[in-house]
Amino acid sequence: MSIQIYGFWRSIASFRVRVALKLKGLSFEEIPVDILAGEQFRPGYEAVNAERVVPTLLHDGHTLFQSLAIIEYLEDIRPEPRLLPLDPKDRAYARSLALVTVADAHPLITPRIRNHLVATFGADATAVENWGRHWTMEGLATYERLLERRAPQPFALGAEPGLADICVAGHTIAAQYLKLELTGFPVVARLSERCFALPAFLSSHPFEQPGYKATQAR
Amino acid sequence: MSIQIYGFWRSIASFRVRVALKLKGLSFEEIPVDILAGEQFRPGYEAVNAERVVPTLLHDGHTLFQSLAIIEYLEDIRPEPRLLPLDPKDRAYARSLALVTVADAHPLITPRIRNHLVATFGADATAVENWGRHWTMEGLATYERLLERRAPQPFALGAEPGLADICVAGHTIAAQYLKLELTGFPVVARLSERCFALPAFLSSHPFEQPGYKATQAR
Repeated sequence: MSIQIYGFWRSIASFRVRVALKLKGLSFEEIPVDILAGEQFRPGYEAVNAERVVPTLLHDGHTLFQSLAIIEYLEDIRPEPRLLPLDPKDRAYARSLALVTVADAHPLITPRIRNHLVATFGADATAVENWGRHWTMEGLATYERLLERRAPQPFALGAEPGLADICVAGHTIAAQYLKLELTGFPVVARLSERCFALPAFLSSHPFEQPGYKATQAR
Repeated sequence: MSIQIYGFWRSIASFRVRVALKLKGLSFEEIPVDILAGEQFRPGYEAVNAERVVPTLLHDGHTLFQSLAIIEYLEDIRPEPRLLPLDPKDRAYARSLALVTVADAHPLITPRIRNHLVATFGADATAVENWGRHWTMEGLATYERLLERRAPQPFALGAEPGLADICVAGHTIAAQYLKLELTGFPVVARLSERCFALPAFLSSHPFEQPGYKATQAR
Protein backbone atom coordinates (compact mmCIF):
# COMPACT_ATOMS: atom_id res chain seq x y z
CA MET A 1 0.00 0.00 0.00
CA SER A 2 1.15 3.51 -0.79
CA ILE A 3 1.24 5.88 2.18
CA GLN A 4 2.33 9.49 2.33
CA ILE A 5 2.41 11.79 5.31
CA TYR A 6 2.58 15.54 5.46
CA GLY A 7 4.85 16.14 8.42
CA PHE A 8 7.53 18.36 9.87
CA TRP A 9 10.82 17.23 11.33
CA ARG A 10 10.27 19.04 14.62
CA SER A 11 6.63 18.02 15.10
CA ILE A 12 6.15 15.53 17.91
CA ALA A 13 2.81 14.43 16.47
CA SER A 14 4.63 13.65 13.19
CA PHE A 15 7.18 11.67 15.23
CA ARG A 16 4.38 9.54 16.71
CA VAL A 17 3.00 8.66 13.30
CA ARG A 18 6.46 7.87 11.90
CA VAL A 19 7.14 5.42 14.74
CA ALA A 20 3.77 3.71 14.35
CA LEU A 21 4.29 3.26 10.62
CA LYS A 22 7.75 1.82 11.19
CA LEU A 23 6.65 -0.53 13.98
CA LYS A 24 3.94 -1.80 11.61
CA GLY A 25 6.49 -2.24 8.85
CA LEU A 26 4.62 0.15 6.56
CA SER A 27 6.76 2.18 4.18
CA PHE A 28 5.83 5.79 3.57
CA GLU A 29 6.99 8.99 1.99
CA GLU A 30 7.08 12.17 4.10
CA ILE A 31 6.25 15.51 2.50
CA PRO A 32 7.62 18.36 4.63
CA VAL A 33 5.37 21.20 5.78
CA ASP A 34 7.47 23.77 7.65
CA ILE A 35 5.08 24.84 10.39
CA LEU A 36 7.64 27.28 11.82
CA ALA A 37 7.75 29.08 8.46
CA GLY A 38 3.94 29.06 8.20
CA GLU A 39 3.68 26.63 5.27
CA GLN A 40 0.58 25.09 6.90
CA PHE A 41 -1.30 28.31 6.06
CA ARG A 42 -0.77 27.98 2.31
CA PRO A 43 -4.24 27.78 0.74
CA GLY A 44 -3.70 24.33 -0.76
CA TYR A 45 -2.88 22.74 2.58
CA GLU A 46 -6.22 23.58 4.19
CA ALA A 47 -7.90 21.25 1.65
CA VAL A 48 -5.64 18.48 2.98
CA ASN A 49 -5.87 19.35 6.67
CA ALA A 50 -8.78 21.50 7.85
CA GLU A 51 -6.93 22.29 11.11
CA ARG A 52 -3.84 23.43 9.18
CA VAL A 53 -1.57 21.28 11.33
CA VAL A 54 0.67 18.29 10.82
CA PRO A 55 0.62 15.36 10.44
CA THR A 56 -1.80 14.35 7.72
CA LEU A 57 -1.75 10.80 6.37
CA LEU A 58 -2.72 10.05 2.78
CA HIS A 59 -3.81 6.52 2.02
CA ASP A 60 -6.04 5.02 -0.60
CA GLY A 61 -7.39 8.39 -1.76
CA HIS A 62 -8.27 9.54 1.75
CA THR A 63 -6.67 12.09 4.02
CA LEU A 64 -6.54 11.36 7.73
CA PHE A 65 -5.59 13.80 10.46
CA GLN A 66 -4.85 13.83 14.21
CA SER A 67 -1.92 11.60 15.17
CA LEU A 68 -3.89 9.41 17.58
CA ALA A 69 -6.67 8.79 15.05
CA ILE A 70 -4.02 7.98 12.43
CA ILE A 71 -2.31 5.45 14.71
CA GLU A 72 -5.66 3.82 15.57
CA TYR A 73 -6.35 3.66 11.82
CA LEU A 74 -3.06 1.89 11.20
CA GLU A 75 -4.00 -0.54 13.98
CA ASP A 76 -7.37 -1.15 12.29
CA ILE A 77 -5.97 -1.81 8.81
CA ARG A 78 -2.77 -3.60 9.87
CA PRO A 79 -3.45 -5.24 13.25
CA GLU A 80 -0.03 -6.89 13.58
CA PRO A 81 2.22 -6.14 15.30
CA ARG A 82 -0.27 -4.76 17.80
CA LEU A 83 0.26 -1.26 19.18
CA LEU A 84 -2.72 -1.67 21.53
CA PRO A 85 -3.34 -4.70 23.75
CA LEU A 86 -6.52 -6.74 23.31
CA ASP A 87 -7.85 -6.63 26.88
CA PRO A 88 -10.31 -3.72 27.17
CA LYS A 89 -8.84 -2.43 30.46
CA ASP A 90 -5.33 -2.58 29.09
CA ARG A 91 -6.47 -0.85 25.90
CA ALA A 92 -8.01 1.89 28.01
CA TYR A 93 -4.81 2.23 30.02
CA ALA A 94 -2.73 2.48 26.83
CA ARG A 95 -5.03 5.12 25.39
CA SER A 96 -5.09 7.04 28.66
CA LEU A 97 -1.32 7.14 28.77
CA ALA A 98 -1.32 8.38 25.18
CA LEU A 99 -3.82 11.12 25.97
CA VAL A 100 -1.79 12.47 28.91
CA THR A 101 0.43 14.09 26.32
CA VAL A 102 -1.82 14.06 23.21
CA ALA A 103 -4.72 15.78 24.96
CA ASP A 104 -3.23 17.46 28.01
CA ALA A 105 0.43 18.40 27.75
CA HIS A 106 1.46 18.65 24.12
CA PRO A 107 -1.39 20.89 22.82
CA LEU A 108 -0.21 23.57 25.24
CA ILE A 109 3.26 23.96 23.78
CA THR A 110 2.69 23.90 20.02
CA PRO A 111 3.80 26.86 17.84
CA ARG A 112 0.27 28.28 17.55
CA ILE A 113 0.06 28.57 21.35
CA ARG A 114 3.53 30.06 21.68
CA ASN A 115 2.68 32.62 18.98
CA HIS A 116 -0.59 33.48 20.69
CA LEU A 117 1.15 34.03 24.04
CA VAL A 118 3.47 36.51 22.34
CA ALA A 119 0.64 38.27 20.51
CA THR A 120 -1.76 38.39 23.46
CA PHE A 121 0.37 38.79 26.55
CA GLY A 122 3.54 40.17 24.98
CA ALA A 123 5.37 37.12 26.28
CA ASP A 124 9.11 37.27 25.64
CA ALA A 125 11.26 34.28 24.71
CA THR A 126 11.94 33.41 28.35
CA ALA A 127 8.26 33.54 29.30
CA VAL A 128 7.34 31.33 26.35
CA GLU A 129 10.07 28.86 27.30
CA ASN A 130 8.93 28.82 30.92
CA TRP A 131 5.36 28.17 29.80
CA GLY A 132 6.55 25.19 27.77
CA ARG A 133 8.70 23.90 30.61
CA HIS A 134 5.85 24.14 33.10
CA TRP A 135 3.41 22.02 31.08
CA THR A 136 6.06 19.60 29.91
CA MET A 137 7.12 19.05 33.55
CA GLU A 138 3.47 18.50 34.50
CA GLY A 139 3.24 15.81 31.84
CA LEU A 140 6.48 14.18 32.97
CA ALA A 141 5.30 14.17 36.60
CA THR A 142 1.99 12.57 35.62
CA TYR A 143 3.78 9.92 33.58
CA GLU A 144 6.18 9.20 36.44
CA ARG A 145 3.31 8.76 38.91
CA LEU A 146 1.47 6.43 36.52
CA LEU A 147 4.48 4.37 35.51
CA GLU A 148 5.63 4.00 39.12
CA ARG A 149 2.32 2.31 39.91
CA ARG A 150 2.50 -0.09 37.02
CA ALA A 151 6.13 -0.65 36.19
CA PRO A 152 7.06 -0.99 32.51
CA GLN A 153 8.02 -4.62 31.74
CA PRO A 154 9.94 -3.41 29.93
CA PHE A 155 7.48 -1.33 27.85
CA ALA A 156 4.42 0.39 29.27
CA LEU A 157 2.03 -2.43 28.42
CA GLY A 158 4.42 -5.37 28.36
CA ALA A 159 7.03 -6.99 26.19
CA GLU A 160 6.53 -4.98 23.01
CA PRO A 161 6.41 -1.24 22.38
CA GLY A 162 3.07 0.28 21.47
CA LEU A 163 0.93 3.39 21.42
CA ALA A 164 1.65 4.35 25.04
CA ASP A 165 5.41 4.08 24.57
CA ILE A 166 5.26 6.14 21.38
CA CYS A 167 3.50 8.94 23.26
CA VAL A 168 5.77 8.83 26.33
CA ALA A 169 8.84 8.85 24.06
CA GLY A 170 7.40 11.80 22.14
CA HIS A 171 6.89 13.65 25.39
CA THR A 172 10.56 13.19 26.28
CA ILE A 173 11.43 14.85 22.97
CA ALA A 174 9.53 17.92 24.19
CA ALA A 175 11.64 17.76 27.36
CA GLN A 176 14.78 17.54 25.22
CA TYR A 177 13.73 20.61 23.20
CA LEU A 178 13.27 22.54 26.43
CA LYS A 179 16.51 21.25 27.98
CA LEU A 180 14.66 19.64 30.88
CA GLU A 181 16.57 16.99 32.81
CA LEU A 182 14.77 13.69 33.29
CA THR A 183 16.65 12.90 36.52
CA GLY A 184 13.52 13.55 38.58
CA PHE A 185 11.58 11.10 36.41
CA PRO A 186 13.65 7.90 36.41
CA VAL A 187 10.91 5.52 35.27
CA VAL A 188 10.03 7.79 32.34
CA ALA A 189 13.72 8.19 31.50
CA ARG A 190 14.33 4.42 31.43
CA LEU A 191 11.27 3.80 29.29
CA SER A 192 12.33 6.50 26.85
CA GLU A 193 15.86 5.06 26.65
CA ARG A 194 14.44 1.63 25.90
CA CYS A 195 12.31 3.11 23.12
CA PHE A 196 15.13 5.03 21.47
CA ALA A 197 17.28 1.91 21.50
CA LEU A 198 14.90 0.61 18.80
CA PRO A 199 15.46 1.65 15.16
CA ALA A 200 11.77 2.53 14.65
CA PHE A 201 11.99 5.15 17.39
CA LEU A 202 15.52 6.35 16.78
CA SER A 203 15.10 6.85 13.04
CA SER A 204 11.84 8.75 13.68
CA HIS A 205 13.45 11.20 16.11
CA PRO A 206 13.27 14.81 14.91
CA PHE A 207 17.06 15.17 14.86
CA GLU A 208 17.31 12.23 12.47
CA GLN A 209 15.06 13.84 9.85
CA PRO A 210 16.40 15.41 6.64
CA GLY A 211 14.70 18.71 7.49
CA TYR A 212 16.63 19.03 10.76
CA LYS A 213 19.91 18.06 9.13
CA ALA A 214 19.34 20.75 6.50
CA THR A 215 18.98 23.40 9.24
CA GLN A 216 22.27 22.25 10.77
CA ALA A 217 24.09 22.42 7.44
CA ARG A 218 23.14 26.05 6.86
CA MET B 1 -22.54 -3.85 35.88
CA SER B 2 -21.84 -1.20 38.49
CA ILE B 3 -20.26 1.97 37.17
CA GLN B 4 -19.30 5.12 39.03
CA ILE B 5 -17.73 8.27 37.67
CA TYR B 6 -15.94 11.04 39.45
CA GLY B 7 -17.10 14.09 37.58
CA PHE B 8 -18.01 17.74 37.87
CA TRP B 9 -21.15 19.39 36.57
CA ARG B 10 -19.26 22.02 34.60
CA SER B 11 -16.62 19.69 33.12
CA ILE B 12 -17.08 19.13 29.39
CA ALA B 13 -15.04 15.93 29.57
CA SER B 14 -17.47 14.67 32.22
CA PHE B 15 -20.33 15.60 29.89
CA ARG B 16 -18.82 13.46 27.13
CA VAL B 17 -18.62 10.40 29.38
CA ARG B 18 -22.17 10.92 30.70
CA VAL B 19 -23.58 10.99 27.15
CA ALA B 20 -21.65 7.89 26.10
CA LEU B 21 -22.90 5.96 29.14
CA LYS B 22 -26.47 7.02 28.46
CA LEU B 23 -26.32 6.23 24.73
CA LYS B 24 -25.03 2.77 25.69
CA GLY B 25 -27.84 2.38 28.20
CA LEU B 26 -25.39 1.93 31.07
CA SER B 27 -26.53 3.23 34.45
CA PHE B 28 -23.97 4.96 36.64
CA GLU B 29 -23.55 7.00 39.77
CA GLU B 30 -21.68 10.31 39.60
CA ILE B 31 -19.52 11.41 42.51
CA PRO B 32 -18.89 15.17 42.33
CA VAL B 33 -15.37 16.58 42.45
CA ASP B 34 -15.55 20.38 42.47
CA ILE B 35 -12.55 21.29 40.31
CA LEU B 36 -13.25 25.01 40.70
CA ALA B 37 -12.94 24.63 44.48
CA GLY B 38 -9.76 22.54 44.12
CA GLU B 39 -11.22 19.24 45.35
CA GLN B 40 -9.15 17.40 42.74
CA PHE B 41 -6.05 18.25 44.77
CA ARG B 42 -7.24 16.41 47.87
CA PRO B 43 -4.65 13.71 48.60
CA GLY B 44 -7.10 10.82 48.21
CA TYR B 45 -8.08 11.80 44.69
CA GLU B 46 -4.58 11.49 43.24
CA ALA B 47 -4.73 7.74 43.94
CA VAL B 48 -7.86 7.62 41.77
CA ASN B 49 -6.66 9.99 39.05
CA ALA B 50 -2.93 10.58 38.69
CA GLU B 51 -3.58 13.71 36.61
CA ARG B 52 -5.92 15.12 39.27
CA VAL B 53 -8.59 15.87 36.71
CA VAL B 54 -12.11 14.68 35.98
CA PRO B 55 -13.61 12.43 34.82
CA THR B 56 -12.50 9.11 36.26
CA LEU B 57 -14.58 5.99 35.64
CA LEU B 58 -14.68 3.15 38.16
CA HIS B 59 -15.67 -0.24 36.86
CA ASP B 60 -14.95 -3.74 37.98
CA GLY B 61 -12.28 -2.67 40.46
CA HIS B 62 -10.40 -0.55 37.92
CA THR B 63 -10.11 3.20 37.52
CA LEU B 64 -10.02 4.61 34.02
CA PHE B 65 -9.17 8.17 33.08
CA GLN B 66 -9.21 10.46 30.02
CA SER B 67 -12.68 10.89 28.52
CA LEU B 68 -11.78 9.57 25.08
CA ALA B 69 -10.12 6.43 26.50
CA ILE B 70 -13.17 5.91 28.71
CA ILE B 71 -15.57 6.18 25.76
CA GLU B 72 -13.44 3.76 23.70
CA TYR B 73 -13.50 1.40 26.70
CA LEU B 74 -17.29 1.55 26.84
CA GLU B 75 -17.31 0.77 23.10
CA ASP B 76 -15.03 -2.22 23.72
CA ILE B 77 -17.09 -3.73 26.55
CA ARG B 78 -20.55 -2.80 25.23
CA PRO B 79 -20.30 -2.58 21.44
CA GLU B 80 -23.99 -1.80 20.81
CA PRO B 81 -25.23 0.74 20.09
CA ARG B 82 -22.04 1.70 18.28
CA LEU B 83 -20.48 5.07 18.95
CA LEU B 84 -17.83 4.44 16.30
CA PRO B 85 -18.52 3.13 12.79
CA LEU B 86 -16.95 -0.14 11.64
CA ASP B 87 -15.23 1.07 8.47
CA PRO B 88 -11.60 1.99 9.30
CA LYS B 89 -11.67 5.29 7.38
CA ASP B 90 -14.94 6.30 9.00
CA ARG B 91 -13.58 5.30 12.42
CA ALA B 92 -10.54 7.48 11.78
CA TYR B 93 -12.77 10.37 10.74
CA ALA B 94 -14.90 10.00 13.89
CA ARG B 95 -11.81 9.92 16.10
CA SER B 96 -10.27 12.88 14.26
CA LEU B 97 -13.41 14.94 14.80
CA ALA B 98 -13.31 13.99 18.48
CA LEU B 99 -9.68 15.01 18.80
CA VAL B 100 -10.25 18.48 17.29
CA THR B 101 -11.69 19.43 20.65
CA VAL B 102 -10.28 16.70 22.93
CA ALA B 103 -6.68 17.29 21.87
CA ASP B 104 -6.62 20.76 20.37
CA ALA B 105 -9.27 23.16 21.61
CA HIS B 106 -10.57 22.01 24.98
CA PRO B 107 -7.22 21.48 26.78
CA LEU B 108 -6.47 25.16 26.25
CA ILE B 109 -9.42 26.48 28.22
CA THR B 110 -9.55 24.24 31.30
CA PRO B 111 -9.30 25.77 34.80
CA ARG B 112 -5.64 24.80 35.23
CA ILE B 113 -4.73 26.82 32.11
CA ARG B 114 -6.84 29.79 33.10
CA ASN B 115 -5.24 29.78 36.56
CA HIS B 116 -1.78 29.57 35.05
CA LEU B 117 -2.44 32.53 32.74
CA VAL B 118 -3.40 34.59 35.78
CA ALA B 119 -0.39 33.43 37.80
CA THR B 120 2.16 33.79 34.99
CA PHE B 121 1.03 36.72 32.89
CA GLY B 122 -1.18 38.49 35.40
CA ALA B 123 -4.09 37.97 33.03
CA ASP B 124 -7.27 39.67 34.22
CA ALA B 125 -10.76 38.21 33.82
CA THR B 126 -11.22 39.80 30.39
CA ALA B 127 -7.90 38.48 29.10
CA VAL B 128 -8.70 34.99 30.35
CA GLU B 129 -12.12 35.14 28.72
CA ASN B 130 -10.63 36.37 25.45
CA TRP B 131 -8.12 33.51 25.53
CA GLY B 132 -10.97 31.02 25.94
CA ARG B 133 -13.01 32.66 23.20
CA HIS B 134 -10.10 32.62 20.76
CA TRP B 135 -9.43 28.89 21.05
CA THR B 136 -13.09 27.95 21.22
CA MET B 137 -13.72 29.95 18.02
CA GLU B 138 -10.77 28.19 16.38
CA GLY B 139 -12.34 24.85 17.25
CA LEU B 140 -15.75 25.96 15.97
CA ALA B 141 -14.21 27.16 12.70
CA THR B 142 -12.39 23.86 12.22
CA TYR B 143 -15.57 21.91 12.89
CA GLU B 144 -17.53 24.08 10.46
CA ARG B 145 -14.93 23.53 7.70
CA LEU B 146 -14.95 19.79 8.29
CA LEU B 147 -18.71 19.38 8.57
CA GLU B 148 -19.31 21.54 5.48
CA ARG B 149 -17.25 19.08 3.44
CA ARG B 150 -19.08 16.03 4.71
CA ALA B 151 -22.57 17.09 5.69
CA PRO B 152 -24.08 15.46 8.79
CA GLN B 153 -26.88 13.06 7.76
CA PRO B 154 -28.14 13.96 10.21
CA PHE B 155 -25.32 13.10 12.65
CA ALA B 156 -21.63 13.43 11.84
CA LEU B 157 -21.18 9.81 10.78
CA GLY B 158 -24.71 8.97 9.70
CA ALA B 159 -28.09 8.10 11.13
CA GLU B 160 -27.13 7.63 14.76
CA PRO B 161 -25.20 9.85 17.18
CA GLY B 162 -21.74 8.73 18.22
CA LEU B 163 -18.34 9.78 19.50
CA ALA B 164 -17.91 12.63 17.02
CA ASP B 165 -21.30 14.14 17.86
CA ILE B 166 -20.60 13.89 21.58
CA CYS B 167 -17.39 15.88 21.13
CA VAL B 168 -18.89 18.51 18.82
CA ALA B 169 -21.83 18.95 21.21
CA GLY B 170 -19.40 19.30 24.12
CA HIS B 171 -17.52 21.97 22.21
CA THR B 172 -20.72 23.98 21.77
CA ILE B 173 -21.12 23.91 25.56
CA ALA B 174 -17.75 25.68 25.79
CA ALA B 175 -19.14 28.25 23.33
CA GLN B 176 -22.23 28.61 25.51
CA TYR B 177 -20.07 29.20 28.62
CA LEU B 178 -18.22 31.94 26.77
CA LYS B 179 -21.39 33.48 25.29
CA LEU B 180 -20.20 32.89 21.73
CA GLU B 181 -22.88 32.99 19.05
CA LEU B 182 -22.97 30.02 16.70
CA THR B 183 -24.46 32.06 13.84
CA GLY B 184 -21.16 31.94 11.94
CA PHE B 185 -21.12 28.16 12.25
CA PRO B 186 -24.50 26.99 10.96
CA VAL B 187 -23.58 23.35 10.32
CA VAL B 188 -22.12 23.01 13.82
CA ALA B 189 -25.17 24.75 15.29
CA ARG B 190 -27.62 22.42 13.55
CA LEU B 191 -25.67 19.33 14.60
CA SER B 192 -25.56 20.52 18.19
CA GLU B 193 -29.31 21.22 18.18
CA ARG B 194 -29.99 17.74 16.87
CA CYS B 195 -27.85 16.26 19.64
CA PHE B 196 -29.49 18.21 22.44
CA ALA B 197 -32.92 17.16 21.18
CA LEU B 198 -31.98 13.69 22.45
CA PRO B 199 -32.48 12.85 26.15
CA ALA B 200 -28.98 11.30 26.46
CA PHE B 201 -27.41 14.63 25.50
CA LEU B 202 -29.87 16.98 27.16
CA SER B 203 -29.83 15.21 30.53
CA SER B 204 -26.01 15.19 30.45
CA HIS B 205 -25.73 18.93 29.86
CA PRO B 206 -23.92 20.77 32.67
CA PHE B 207 -26.94 22.95 33.47
CA GLU B 208 -29.04 19.81 34.06
CA GLN B 209 -26.70 18.46 36.75
CA PRO B 210 -27.54 18.62 40.48
CA GLY B 211 -24.27 20.48 41.15
CA TYR B 212 -25.24 23.32 38.83
CA LYS B 213 -28.75 23.52 40.21
CA ALA B 214 -27.31 23.77 43.72
CA THR B 215 -25.24 26.80 42.69
CA GLN B 216 -28.38 28.44 41.28
CA ALA B 217 -30.38 27.80 44.44
CA ARG B 218 -27.85 29.58 46.63
